[in-house]
Amino acid sequence: MKVEYVNPVLRSAVSVFSTMLNCELTRQDLFLKDDSKALHEVSGIIGLSGKAKGTVVLSLYREAALRATEVMLQVRPDSINSDVTDAIGELTNMIAGAAKAQLEQYELSITLSTVITGKGHSIGFPSGAPALYIPFECEWGGVVVQVGYVGQPNQMAEPAVM
Amino acid sequence: MKVEYVNPVLRSAVSVFSTMLNCELTRQDLFLKDDSKALHEVSGIIGLSGKAKGTVVLSLYREAALRATEVMLQVRPDSINSDVTDAIGELTNMIAGAAKAQLEQYELSITLSTVITGKGHSIGFPSGAPALYIPFECEWGGVVVQVGYVGQPNQMAEPAVM
Repeated sequence: MKVEYVNPVLRSAVSVFSTMLNCELTRQDLFLKDDSKALHEVSGIIGLSGKAKGTVVLSLYREAALRATEVMLQVRPDSINSDVTDAIGELTNMIAGAAKAQLEQYELSITLSTVITGKGHSIGFPSGAPALYIPFECEWGGVVVQVGYVGQPNQMAEPAVM
Repeated sequence: MKVEYVNPVLRSAVSVFSTMLNCELTRQDLFLKDDSKALHEVSGIIGLSGKAKGTVVLSLYREAALRATEVMLQVRPDSINSDVTDAIGELTNMIAGAAKAQLEQYELSITLSTVITGKGHSIGFPSGAPALYIPFECEWGGVVVQVGYVGQPNQMAEPAVM
């Protein structure tokens, strides 16, 4: 499986969490998604398009979403409210923006982020688009990055995921 | 409020439902969203980016999602399964693609669609991005199109929504 699009996203997620939240992400084993369950409560979604197309999803458990928002806004939100959706949307945006900068040859632009909340939600990618599911652990619990994409990767020499 | 981005999306939704599904959409009063509840069970999300950025969300009640899938695939799905997410993702993609063709001056490209399922899900737009919520009725029940966007609309002479 081609992973040219995936590494920059993973690196950016680790970097944004470290820089913006002072939170170190540790990567667990990645896998191809076999269903569409988000497993988390808050998911930021953002698209990239240009010479390739991709979607980046950042999913967090409730506590991780609340703590990330608290660090960004310096106030602890009392529920999954619009402060949380703004904060997680902004984190998703920063990850996509940093990944885009590492994928210049695809001339990507990023869309608006949207943030899905709700314990029962599932996120489905088109069947023609492979989606990698990359779990991380941090002191606040689990964080998952999902990357779906289509397009022809070129000869970038990046043989394996991180 | 600027609606330059919104009319092409609404026209495209009506046209795609009519052409692809033989289903006539009747528009109800639109409103600015005051919360992020999707109110529906299946939502296709797609982004557009270029000289402006926008997100188009197509939300359907369960029955409308099942019926739309049945018409597209000629088989009635027995649940909200991957056939449904593929069909609704494809409808969302066609609506965004048709809208993009009417907004050539923004040089937009469209991203991959993702499809959110789950009765309790909410879709939040960034606070800086206004999101219009446009309900439609059809023989299968309610269908909602949401459009969120940022960017500077130019002097297109389209004074009001459809």
